[in-house]
Amino acid sequence: MIIEYDGTNYAGWQRQANALAVQQVIEEALHRLTGERVTLHGASRTDAGVHALGQSAHFDTESRIPGEKFSYALNALLPRDIRIRGSADTSDDFHARFSTQGKRYRYLFYDAPHAGALNRNTHAHSIYPLNEGMMRAEAEALIGTHDFSAFAASGSVVRDTVRTIWRADVDRDGNDVRLIVEGNGFLYNMVRIIAGTLRDIGSGKLEPGALARAIDTGNRLDLGVTAPAHGLTLMEVFYAPRSDADKER
Amino acid sequence: MIIEYDGTNYAGWQRQANALAVQQVIEEALHRLTGERVTLHGASRTDAGVHALGQSAHFDTESRIPGEKFSYALNALLPRDIRIRGSADTSDDFHARFSTQGKRYRYLFYDAPHAGALNRNTHAHSIYPLNEGMMRAEAEALIGTHDFSAFAASGSVVRDTVRTIWRADVDRDGNDVRLIVEGNGFLYNMVRIIAGTLRDIGSGKLEPGALARAIDTGNRLDLGVTAPAHGLTLMEVFYAPRSDADKER
Repeated sequence: MIIEYDGTNYAGWQRQANALAVQQVIEEALHRLTGERVTLHGASRTDAGVHALGQSAHFDTESRIPGEKFSYALNALLPRDIRIRGSADTSDDFHARFSTQGKRYRYLFYDAPHAGALNRNTHAHSIYPLNEGMMRAEAEALIGTHDFSAFAASGSVVRDTVRTIWRADVDRDGNDVRLIVEGNGFLYNMVRIIAGTLRDIGSGKLEPGALARAIDTGNRLDLGVTAPAHGLTLMEVFYAPRSDADKER
Repeated sequence: MIIEYDGTNYAGWQRQANALAVQQVIEEALHRLTGERVTLHGASRTDAGVHALGQSAHFDTESRIPGEKFSYALNALLPRDIRIRGSADTSDDFHARFSTQGKRYRYLFYDAPHAGALNRNTHAHSIYPLNEGMMRAEAEALIGTHDFSAFAASGSVVRDTVRTIWRADVDRDGNDVRLIVEGNGFLYNMVRIIAGTLRDIGSGKLEPGALARAIDTGNRLDLGVTAPAHGLTLMEVFYAPRSDADKER
């Protein structure tokens, strides 16, 4: 299934004991629909407040409902801030998390003297004007295969911190500054640390060159403050390997 | 003051007895700030669910707070879904409603098999694909000075139904179809009736030519179903007369 959600009112994707997560809401709708207690495997464990336009998830079921009908049946049961954009049967060896070949994330800033009302849950507000040209030039340092150990939230215990990023674009539309990053995988909080570092460079708080320096040193302190969760959206999960042509975009 | 609000949780702009309106929330913040019971005069009485990026409003006060400081002081007191974008002192003969020379509105549709989650409060969902080219061609009939009596919600009692519209654009960005209309004034529900008629033409439910026909006949029945409130946003209120060059845009 391809899933869209407004993360504002959820404790993130992953089911937890004391707070409502997106995974739990969909699993409960699946229970109402099929009578089964299924586990929904999501591609990305998005944090509280983070949104998705293209989360992917799979589940195993004995139900005879055709795969493509699940989206319609579930949307009739789900709250309006969670929507199934599409669903289909898949092969037994497909796994929404382990079959992942890459992901695209978007981070949105809004630079203006006052925060916005309509975009308050999707854009991180910056009272400082952001120089998107400087941010765009800085983001180029991310492209390629690097050890991103400096870009992991403290306390994360992943061993392999090498990732490949093939797209890191920054553009502006009015007061909206948009970052798009695409790569084969991201460490915990990595996109928010990248976004926060670009914001700090765009507002003049941090010297350009921080991303390259941090890749070199592996030191989290070379980077900026982690940007808030609500500016982040998981846009798409890729299951086909990226061709070199795609990576050149 | 220029005011932005997310209309989702309000009973519209205008203060009412039994439901919370945007006007009341700001008036109460003004009372906390100044100690005065002021009346806030808004340019447009937007309906429940309708949003604003550029509502205008004025009030009279004895306060010595400089005009440009009100935005900062009020934003510290207001809920996050109402923001003052800017404020300034003005002349005694200025009136936010009666000095109006024109307004710009935006209406947003989202055409896709399933409704969106992130855009659920700002876009009207159409399960039918919308032909934005047909909608754009149809919208041209609005341009000019016409008697728009067919475009008023039933029960409205305005005598003068002649209005001038100088802009009516339709464009698409992915699954978002956007209507922009600008004119010297709009009858009650007029933009939502225009949007609904364009949607019905774009989805093939209604024959092209309906707008011109309704201008001609004055018959509400020549038009489509009123589009829902939540797709509508008041973008800007104009106080300077539009030049002919502007009107040609």
